[in-house]
Amino acid sequence: MASTPKLRDVAALAGVHPGTASRALNPATRLMVNADTARRVLEAARELGYQPSPVTKGLKSTRTLSVGMIIPDLTNPIYPPIVRGVEDVLRDAGYTALLANTDNDPEQAAAQFAALRSRQVDGFLIATAHRDDQLIAEAARAGISLVLIHRRLDTSLGHNGDLPPVPSVVGDERSGIEEAVRHLVDLGHTRIAHLAGPGNTSTGYTRLRAFQDSLATHRLPADDDLVVECGGYTEAAGEEALRTLLDRGKPVTAVVCGNDMIAVGCYNVLEERGVSCPDQLSLVGFNDMPLVDKLRPPLTTVQVPDGKVGQEAARLLLERIADPSLPARTVQLPLRFIRRGSTAPPPAPYLARGARYAGMHWRSARK
Amino acid sequence: MASTPKLRDVAALAGVHPGTASRALNPATRLMVNADTARRVLEAARELGYQPSPVTKGLKSTRTLSVGMIIPDLTNPIYPPIVRGVEDVLRDAGYTALLANTDNDPEQAAAQFAALRSRQVDGFLIATAHRDDQLIAEAARAGISLVLIHRRLDTSLGHNGDLPPVPSVVGDERSGIEEAVRHLVDLGHTRIAHLAGPGNTSTGYTRLRAFQDSLATHRLPADDDLVVECGGYTEAAGEEALRTLLDRGKPVTAVVCGNDMIAVGCYNVLEERGVSCPDQLSLVGFNDMPLVDKLRPPLTTVQVPDGKVGQEAARLLLERIADPSLPARTVQLPLRFIRRGSTAPPPAPYLARGARYAGMHWRSARK
Repeated sequence: MASTPKLRDVAALAGVHPGTASRALNPATRLMVNADTARRVLEAARELGYQPSPVTKGLKSTRTLSVGMIIPDLTNPIYPPIVRGVEDVLRDAGYTALLANTDNDPEQAAAQFAALRSRQVDGFLIATAHRDDQLIAEAARAGISLVLIHRRLDTSLGHNGDLPPVPSVVGDERSGIEEAVRHLVDLGHTRIAHLAGPGNTSTGYTRLRAFQDSLATHRLPADDDLVVECGGYTEAAGEEALRTLLDRGKPVTAVVCGNDMIAVGCYNVLEERGVSCPDQLSLVGFNDMPLVDKLRPPLTTVQVPDGKVGQEAARLLLERIADPSLPARTVQLPLRFIRRGSTAPPPAPYLARGARYAGMHWRSARK
Repeated sequence: MASTPKLRDVAALAGVHPGTASRALNPATRLMVNADTARRVLEAARELGYQPSPVTKGLKSTRTLSVGMIIPDLTNPIYPPIVRGVEDVLRDAGYTALLANTDNDPEQAAAQFAALRSRQVDGFLIATAHRDDQLIAEAARAGISLVLIHRRLDTSLGHNGDLPPVPSVVGDERSGIEEAVRHLVDLGHTRIAHLAGPGNTSTGYTRLRAFQDSLATHRLPADDDLVVECGGYTEAAGEEALRTLLDRGKPVTAVVCGNDMIAVGCYNVLEERGVSCPDQLSLVGFNDMPLVDKLRPPLTTVQVPDGKVGQEAARLLLERIADPSLPARTVQLPLRFIRRGSTAPPPAPYLARGARYAGMHWRSARK
């Protein structure tokens, strides 16, 4: 190319107004532009080798164009789609993510956070936050740019009372659980259990509350014996929780799991105990992570658009890095209930009055 | 702590000789130390807040302590365990990985590579290499520290003839396929097909050659109609390949898949065509990626220790960054054959002479 490409060249190639191109090229204003348009402008800029003006460069020169991303464990199938979404948005903005795994160990989280800070990342995406997370509280007080993923801090707890609001991207947990319970009630279930996620996470807490409220909505009695809190969002924790539930010996015909990993653990216990799903026990997950549609039976679940969650979180963080004075937003994304083979009407003796289905008896394999 | 911790304090806490501690703390010599010992030393160093001596610091000051890692797609379940293994080793050495996805698009790979170079990474881990990859060839010629993961360059191709050797970490592909074919032959199969990975990858190429050689070893005739090359290591490519194979109408009782994602695609086609696995058709995968043990039937496959592959690759790269004059090594890790429910003796009419099993007829659902 003979001359240095100008903003108007980029705008012309992308077929947009120069003002639109300018907004699309600036991470701070990119959200004002339609996503497809922004992508077209960024592609045009790349194609032409367009360099931002000295002013923009000056602004950027104090930055490392990297952000720290803290997750529990990349090998948990829930996280790769989130990370991928984050990286796609960051890359388009010339940013890169430094990934750190904590294995849900607070000490490891603190060490990783310190290591990333020493690399002078411009901000953090954090998927490991607890409701009263002191690490995040301190970082937020120190003015570090942060966005939480699938997590919220619980400012109602005393020692978070003075915390500045922290932006976050979450799913509409409440509606997801409501739809799951409504589906089971429609099938005729009345004995519905919940294997809750850890109570110190906002997802575990919110889903449990939504579950309890949903039972009330459908005038089903609350039975504490039908709720078990899992030690983590893991297959092993799901196994342990379902064993605990079944060992209590209360009639139960359906289980709403805190997430898909917990549900995967349930499949193991169902096989171990000879309980047939969905004939004897219906199972609902949460996330729709890869391959749960291939389980036998395929898992009925609540689909969380994890790629989109990652993208939104990255956009939110770029926005805050560009202008830390922006108010902290919480982006709540809609979820989608996916009915598959792991849910069916309950065995006849447990069928709700008024429902017509007559199935087989549920018997515990221990009897 | 009152005084600055010394090397001997670290050694004492770890319960090793100071010489051992020194070797464990230096990425260039860490491989000379037992992995558990090295971990203990690094933990002791962290605990004490030990800082390396000024000499070591000086050596490191020209480095960014970051490496670029280029993979096709993090949401492909094969990659997260590799990335996690890489990150665990890098973290212990004070390094971090910058991850880039290419979606197997050469242009995207080139752009990502350039972006990572402009961030002055100390080296690259590359899981996307093709057998005649020009990008890698150029980088190797330019003296950039590189380690290939699950890939080798084909220096027998003319335009790579002048290429310096590039270190790589791979599985023992050949033994893996040999075991898979032997298992099927032992079950009585003689009509064994292969849905090969892309021929421009070393894994696709090596596994196909091993498959052909294994048939010869067992004196089974080669039939070109029983080999289909997949367009990629993806579920969609696996679906397409199995449809092509079945549409050829040749008798076939077992399929060795190029990898687990291809096998997952096969499950879809088996359901679509009403072919029962393993009664009518046995299926073998390659990788043992998460959740394939939960498929119905659970997938018989060759287990690749992906976490370890990532760890070894990171160690190899750190070794080369510390001393670029080291000879390029290829680390080949042993694989493990895992028999699960997707393989069984063939239907009776196809049972090898001498075998005793009598099963049901195989019939194509199209007939």
